[in-house]
Amino acid sequence: MRFSGVLAIIVIVAFCGCESNSRVSENGSFVGQPNFVIIFADDLGYGDLGVYGHPTIRTPHLDRMAAEGLRFTQFYTGASVCTPSRAALLTGRLPVRSGMADDRIRVIFPPSKGGLPAAEITIAEALKSIGYATAAIGKWHLGHLPEYLPTAHGFDEYFGIPYSNDMTPSASKGARVQTYPPLPLMRGEEIIEEEPDQRLLTRRYTEESITFIRSNVDNPFFLYVPHSMPHIPIFASEDFEGTSTRGLYGDVIEELDWSVGQILEVLRDTGLDRKTFVIFTSDNSPWLTVGLAGGTAGLLRNGKGTTWEGGMRVPTIAWWPETIPAGNVTQALGKTMNLLPTMLGLAGAALPGDRVLDGVDLTPVLKDPAARVRESVYYYRGAQLWAARKGPWKMHYITRSAYVGDQPVMHIPPALYHLDRDPGERFNVAADEPEVLREIQAMVDAHKEELVKAPSQLDIPEWND
Amino acid sequence: MRFSGVLAIIVIVAFCGCESNSRVSENGSFVGQPNFVIIFADDLGYGDLGVYGHPTIRTPHLDRMAAEGLRFTQFYTGASVCTPSRAALLTGRLPVRSGMADDRIRVIFPPSKGGLPAAEITIAEALKSIGYATAAIGKWHLGHLPEYLPTAHGFDEYFGIPYSNDMTPSASKGARVQTYPPLPLMRGEEIIEEEPDQRLLTRRYTEESITFIRSNVDNPFFLYVPHSMPHIPIFASEDFEGTSTRGLYGDVIEELDWSVGQILEVLRDTGLDRKTFVIFTSDNSPWLTVGLAGGTAGLLRNGKGTTWEGGMRVPTIAWWPETIPAGNVTQALGKTMNLLPTMLGLAGAALPGDRVLDGVDLTPVLKDPAARVRESVYYYRGAQLWAARKGPWKMHYITRSAYVGDQPVMHIPPALYHLDRDPGERFNVAADEPEVLREIQAMVDAHKEELVKAPSQLDIPEWND
Repeated sequence: MRFSGVLAIIVIVAFCGCESNSRVSENGSFVGQPNFVIIFADDLGYGDLGVYGHPTIRTPHLDRMAAEGLRFTQFYTGASVCTPSRAALLTGRLPVRSGMADDRIRVIFPPSKGGLPAAEITIAEALKSIGYATAAIGKWHLGHLPEYLPTAHGFDEYFGIPYSNDMTPSASKGARVQTYPPLPLMRGEEIIEEEPDQRLLTRRYTEESITFIRSNVDNPFFLYVPHSMPHIPIFASEDFEGTSTRGLYGDVIEELDWSVGQILEVLRDTGLDRKTFVIFTSDNSPWLTVGLAGGTAGLLRNGKGTTWEGGMRVPTIAWWPETIPAGNVTQALGKTMNLLPTMLGLAGAALPGDRVLDGVDLTPVLKDPAARVRESVYYYRGAQLWAARKGPWKMHYITRSAYVGDQPVMHIPPALYHLDRDPGERFNVAADEPEVLREIQAMVDAHKEELVKAPSQLDIPEWND
Repeated sequence: MRFSGVLAIIVIVAFCGCESNSRVSENGSFVGQPNFVIIFADDLGYGDLGVYGHPTIRTPHLDRMAAEGLRFTQFYTGASVCTPSRAALLTGRLPVRSGMADDRIRVIFPPSKGGLPAAEITIAEALKSIGYATAAIGKWHLGHLPEYLPTAHGFDEYFGIPYSNDMTPSASKGARVQTYPPLPLMRGEEIIEEEPDQRLLTRRYTEESITFIRSNVDNPFFLYVPHSMPHIPIFASEDFEGTSTRGLYGDVIEELDWSVGQILEVLRDTGLDRKTFVIFTSDNSPWLTVGLAGGTAGLLRNGKGTTWEGGMRVPTIAWWPETIPAGNVTQALGKTMNLLPTMLGLAGAALPGDRVLDGVDLTPVLKDPAARVRESVYYYRGAQLWAARKGPWKMHYITRSAYVGDQPVMHIPPALYHLDRDPGERFNVAADEPEVLREIQAMVDAHKEELVKAPSQLDIPEWND
């Protein structure tokens, strides 16, 4: 089914020739090679946007994006912390397959020598191979040695900081981090500034994004904007500091909202709006242990670093005027890992045939909010599977109530929640549903049978103490 | 200021004469005596509507109402349980002033002999006195003896059940409730059915509401629709049972949403939409102790029966095409107790001058979401003040973590939360803000000095065991 879809698109591309980026079908939806923009917030909570019910954070641009596009209520990241989540998004694969998940240390740190292996195929690499201009503007966090930087993974251009904004002697505490180098701001493979003014990161990423879009009005492009905010330490520019009744965290979100508005506006200005698929999402849900510097998961349980819904279900809005019908909300399951097959399919690029992809093409849902694609989720904590979802049911083998400092709880038998009826995971109904437990167990068994874990890229030998 | 506003409206009414219900100002907003509709859900949670972020309950009609109207993120009921909340809404006064709050027994029960005193002036009574047609369709719960029924309090018509739908031998458990009479369905002062089919309540209330509106196209009216749902036991009609992925609770909310859609649609059909101020809200937030038969307060803490935000902050949407600007969200504080002065002001009726009102006219906020009216809230549990809000700050003297079964906790010094920054009441900052504590204490002292509590109407002597 998917194969014939790809074929059809290839035929259309051939027919369009050099005008392949500018055709529109009879019903107004775009046909050809669309542009792609992924805007990826850092630690934004499920409940942090106006359109997701926050009472005091104002997000008029994201609210408008939802009114003009499609809002997901059940969209998942590939992990509940930065590095593996980014690997999942860009490769369409679970982080354990690429070595980007590890139980001991779960993200890349400044002393790390590893990164996303060259053998992995990113969205950028696949699109570049068929002529797309590509740029990553923001936080990378998939390896900062030259062989792992965005420019080694299919991005023509890179501007941003290579890992988290708290990985600097100026922002962190503890003996280890005093050995960190100054936080680098990079362009391509060069460090162009040390310890950049973090109040300006959101604005500078936005300006770079706009420049990239304006430079590529006449050819298809893929723009990946992984913001540094609202990961701690949080900063807003002068224009936004003090604007939100929510305090600094609200200022930061409102500046991100402004940034989204700027990007959509330049797409409208340049007439690219009908040719461009934009998706806004977050790498994981809120960091609850950092007090008011962190967000809220709304009615969902827990937050970042956990396999509860509050850790891995994220606010997500898709926008593509006239191709994605306006103003819908979908309960369909979506995942950041869907984006690689979706975008490659839409662009007419072949999917990598030599590896397992964990995402499937989400296009049916984009066009019809009642459509459904593969309805399963594997919730990994590091390299361990702690929970699995099948349809509305989620089974937990192990849970942990916070990011650090507590102990994991093993559930025998596993805990079971019906996420549609009980999105807050309040009522364990395992005792009533033995058949569901068996079904999910069979799904998990098959998954584990198939899964090949790659060697970890995240180990830091000198930290093995 | 308010007095001169009333004068101006009276002049206009005199000028308009018999056509006072049909003038429109130059800017399109309505001038004259508008119609009023209050739709009042029962135990609906802050987080239970699509437009307030629920992931699986679909509320397209309420979402549209918000898109066409004004959504409040900080709107309060007068109490966190049924009877006092309804008294507050209809009188514009704290329930302790009318005897409708009591520490021992907090609502009216079938053996109760009391009710809302005749001396209280309801919205219906005030509007009826200036020629409005008035109807109450739904759950009353302010006294079921004849002298306390809606028809004794300014409503021309009444259709519905006189108290909660669980106050029946068929739905309740326990020795006392076995003595309850069959649940009555009333029209006016007559019981027309016993133990009505609760699956049909929402639909029947809707049909009665539509009939009332259609009968009053040519004269101003006040329609009060206090739904029985989603108070337990929850029921949906055949048309809605099984439609929501949230389960029966979702079906019930989706039927309420349908009902709202029906009422707005008949207003459009009859051309009354521009002449009618509609407000949708709830008597208190969700009943968390009833499992999946109860809703969610979203990111707010706790639920029904408590003085946490999850108990008394409710989803609220105001709608009045061309008079209320479309598509806004306001952080202004609103209260059900604002409705009496607001509606009387808009209708050109004098406010009762011989008593304290706890609400003020909310019209400035309806016309401009950035406007603010009195920014204080008193959180009573029964007849005791447990918390108070001034601006963004909320101070708790006593808290209790659930509706029943636990013990109150007294806070010395009081606990303090900044609700704009910390809407989930997670971080007590009392130690950092002694001046704020003093300010709120001074406000509370003045309030207590002024307050005259009325004798309780809620005592049931034979239950004093």
